[in-house]
Amino acid sequence: MSADRLIYLPLGGAGEIGMNCYVYGYGPAGDERLIVVDLGVTFPDMDTTPGVDLILPDIAWLAERRDRIEAIFVTHAHEDHVGAVGHLWRRLRVPVFARPFTAEIARRKMEEQDQPDDAVTTVEPWPHQVQAGPFKVAFLPMSHSIPESSALVIDTPAGRVIHTGDFKLDPTPLVGEPFDPELWAEVARPGVRALICDSTNVFTDHPGRSEAVLGPEVEKFVASQPGMVVATTFASNIARVRTLALAGMAAGRSVVLLGRAMRRMVQTAVETGVLTDFPHTVPVEDAGLIPRESLMLIVTGSQGERRAASAQLARGKYLGLELGEGDTFLFSSKTIPGNEKAVIGIMNAFSEKGVEVVDDRGGLYHVSGHANRPDLKLIHGIVRPHFLVPMHGEHRHLRAHVRLAAESGISGVLAPNGTMLDLSGDLAQVVEHVETGRTYVDGSVLIGAFDGVVRERIRMALNGHVMVTLIMDEEDEPVGDPWCETMGLPETGSSRTPLVDVLEHDLDQFLRRADDDVLVDDEKLSEALRRTVRNTAQSEIGRKPEVTVVVSRLSA
Amino acid sequence: MSADRLIYLPLGGAGEIGMNCYVYGYGPAGDERLIVVDLGVTFPDMDTTPGVDLILPDIAWLAERRDRIEAIFVTHAHEDHVGAVGHLWRRLRVPVFARPFTAEIARRKMEEQDQPDDAVTTVEPWPHQVQAGPFKVAFLPMSHSIPESSALVIDTPAGRVIHTGDFKLDPTPLVGEPFDPELWAEVARPGVRALICDSTNVFTDHPGRSEAVLGPEVEKFVASQPGMVVATTFASNIARVRTLALAGMAAGRSVVLLGRAMRRMVQTAVETGVLTDFPHTVPVEDAGLIPRESLMLIVTGSQGERRAASAQLARGKYLGLELGEGDTFLFSSKTIPGNEKAVIGIMNAFSEKGVEVVDDRGGLYHVSGHANRPDLKLIHGIVRPHFLVPMHGEHRHLRAHVRLAAESGISGVLAPNGTMLDLSGDLAQVVEHVETGRTYVDGSVLIGAFDGVVRERIRMALNGHVMVTLIMDEEDEPVGDPWCETMGLPETGSSRTPLVDVLEHDLDQFLRRADDDVLVDDEKLSEALRRTVRNTAQSEIGRKPEVTVVVSRLSA
Repeated sequence: MSADRLIYLPLGGAGEIGMNCYVYGYGPAGDERLIVVDLGVTFPDMDTTPGVDLILPDIAWLAERRDRIEAIFVTHAHEDHVGAVGHLWRRLRVPVFARPFTAEIARRKMEEQDQPDDAVTTVEPWPHQVQAGPFKVAFLPMSHSIPESSALVIDTPAGRVIHTGDFKLDPTPLVGEPFDPELWAEVARPGVRALICDSTNVFTDHPGRSEAVLGPEVEKFVASQPGMVVATTFASNIARVRTLALAGMAAGRSVVLLGRAMRRMVQTAVETGVLTDFPHTVPVEDAGLIPRESLMLIVTGSQGERRAASAQLARGKYLGLELGEGDTFLFSSKTIPGNEKAVIGIMNAFSEKGVEVVDDRGGLYHVSGHANRPDLKLIHGIVRPHFLVPMHGEHRHLRAHVRLAAESGISGVLAPNGTMLDLSGDLAQVVEHVETGRTYVDGSVLIGAFDGVVRERIRMALNGHVMVTLIMDEEDEPVGDPWCETMGLPETGSSRTPLVDVLEHDLDQFLRRADDDVLVDDEKLSEALRRTVRNTAQSEIGRKPEVTVVVSRLSA
Repeated sequence: MSADRLIYLPLGGAGEIGMNCYVYGYGPAGDERLIVVDLGVTFPDMDTTPGVDLILPDIAWLAERRDRIEAIFVTHAHEDHVGAVGHLWRRLRVPVFARPFTAEIARRKMEEQDQPDDAVTTVEPWPHQVQAGPFKVAFLPMSHSIPESSALVIDTPAGRVIHTGDFKLDPTPLVGEPFDPELWAEVARPGVRALICDSTNVFTDHPGRSEAVLGPEVEKFVASQPGMVVATTFASNIARVRTLALAGMAAGRSVVLLGRAMRRMVQTAVETGVLTDFPHTVPVEDAGLIPRESLMLIVTGSQGERRAASAQLARGKYLGLELGEGDTFLFSSKTIPGNEKAVIGIMNAFSEKGVEVVDDRGGLYHVSGHANRPDLKLIHGIVRPHFLVPMHGEHRHLRAHVRLAAESGISGVLAPNGTMLDLSGDLAQVVEHVETGRTYVDGSVLIGAFDGVVRERIRMALNGHVMVTLIMDEEDEPVGDPWCETMGLPETGSSRTPLVDVLEHDLDQFLRRADDDVLVDDEKLSEALRRTVRNTAQSEIGRKPEVTVVVSRLSA
């Protein structure tokens, strides 16, 4: 009997949608050789992470075990799978493997962070295997909303594991490989110890729809519009961008790609050979010469991002183009939870310009890239794993996915971020709980989620900020009056006198009565001044602000 | 020919969902007698209004014409129609008219703001009319997701206007009056000059569903759950609360109302006679004695509000109750755009506890309170107004509603907030654009949306804040070194030295080189110090913070 074991540890993505990062290990307990699957990001919001630029998984656990890591495998090129490669690679310094399109995007991520892009190696798909310590890893083609998405077939001494990555079951994805049930059956035939499976659409009851169903609808739609047509989708959804472009062409329109990400993605797809028949496009500089009814723009910003092309067009003239009465804006996309207000804001801005806005309400112009409930059930049935471990989903998704597996008599294991599973035995066992978390890219600095920086920002935003300056002389007496500045607070409150005047008056009153033991002690004095400010503010404006006190002593 | 005219002016609600406030006027141009319909609120968010407690319409235009206002009419008791009555009444001081349930809620709003609750007068429904200057106003019963919602039939010398308020066409609303097409036809028979019509559901293509369809489904659902059942909905949706309570009873469960708003709303509905058959409830203190499979809680917090009962239960033990494996949480509600993340957070917190969470995905446990597209068309057809003016909706809703009216050959007029229409003539004319906006309730203070207070908060949240203190002596030379404090910024940056040390060092360097004409001039000196801080921060941490500089001069 071997003392070696096969472990699985999600560091991100299991308990959230986004920020995927999974670890597999094989070897003696506590000394397993490790591989990493995906290094993704998630995006900040004003509610919880104001000012933050990007959110990465906390890889402290991995960094401490760097010498045990064999390689990083990237399943596909979505930001929530590849976005952290550039930021985090320097802490791991191991080879990165991916298929050509994904590898190209990963290299760009490395370059952007001044990391060596030759750390990324391009890999052929199944049946080719990459040897990584005790693991043999193959990229098994699978359809998704980006080309070359792949499941990983991870062969270990304890058996075969399939990590699906993100996927849908699309027989006609238009760009990239279709789902091939026979190939999957063949891969599953020797027996699969564990299926680590995408869970994002587990609550969607109908079978997924193919990318190919959209073409005729989009074509009909674009052809029937009287003015300029502008369509937005994720730039990385190459098949969709192509469908939109072909619809434009078919309607006799010149196609313009707008937004850096859009042009880059298409370019990368062409260069890596995944896109071979993209129609001719026109540079935006020439768009002004083309009658608007002969124009079709395909633009970035389907999620309402402030700086993307769709938001710029909603605000007014952008690169010489301006939408108006008779023009049409199409969201060939779904709105990710949390982005609703931004997207709605853009819709209304266009409405004010007289632009006809069409979204995917009717289901005609968008299909999801993830496997729905019946599709998951189908893949469970093909793979028939010993264990099903749901990944990529919020807790509720993982939970529902475990139950779904049970319907097929498959043993599902709920393992949120930080749960280390031993998958070697007959029963999956939780062997450890690892501290996981998030790292913020904040300007040019990486900060921990619990460093308190963001908490201070939120407090200032909710409560406003008062700064108190006080100078004390050699005899520990105040020099002049205390001075207040406020930021983010009303100018006047209940007494209709400027708030700073009331605060300074009350601070002055306090200082006149203060005991010497307070006046000589910076900490006590600051605390007392802070309390005075908070109490006065409460009675003047009904809120207690954040307070910073600076006491300067001339004696010092 | 009369020089008098009939005007319509939305101050809130036309260009947004929420914050309803509409003005009608009749008389000589610029000297019309005025009535106000609804004084509602909308809710702040972290993205645009951090720290703000509540958002009211800016009624400056009305306040300046206070002597011309005859009365305020409140169509129903939802916050976005009645919520600002207490805050704004003191600036108008005119009688408020409403039906009993609504009047009771309005009185409570007055009390909460120390305003005289006898300013609110209870009114009988149609055919009773309130005379208000040149207007005769009647409350015409209409179904909605709250009892006693009413359209207003506003008779003027220029003809009849119908202001729908919020409504749906429900023949069986269970609580409150059903939609009565014959009554509406009778009211419309003399001819209707303008129909001012709710637009919120203009994008929903199927006919609305009755509140009554939910009962059997909810009953079946509650009966089949093994443990405690907790259901949430809007407290003001009395019919829904009753449906949930009856389902609990039918399943042999004791019913507990949790959350102050929930108990108050039911109590008000009982007291005002709109609710006559609410089942017996059990105080929460007694719930602990009841086996969990015999308990049904109906709780506040369907939108994920942090302090409401559902969020409290998601966090842990609340009032002695704790949910766990085998228990069920039902959202008998829809999530309002912008609240998705909060609601999803609650779902996941329950999932972690093993609680089964069910929402309205399948449409079984919630129906909307607003008229859908076919319902709007139906009411257009019954009323056949000379003009259709869409209200209560974002710009895109108003726009779509104008088009919908055109399908029935009715002339629709797009009039967003601030658009004053003259409805007297054959053609509706825009006669004025009035400055409109929002007023923030911020602690105990009312502030204008453009006062800059909120902008400062957002800046601090996005950029962090640095405070610089510098003391200058009688000869305009620095006393000691400049002092920096930071809030919301990383402690160290690229040089790995504490950020404040680097800032202070660079400020010191600057001061050593500074010209006398800068040192003697507070404004120049502060600006130069601010610039130094921003540049140093940019190179250290990659961001430019907000900076407050305090220069204290001992000579002064």
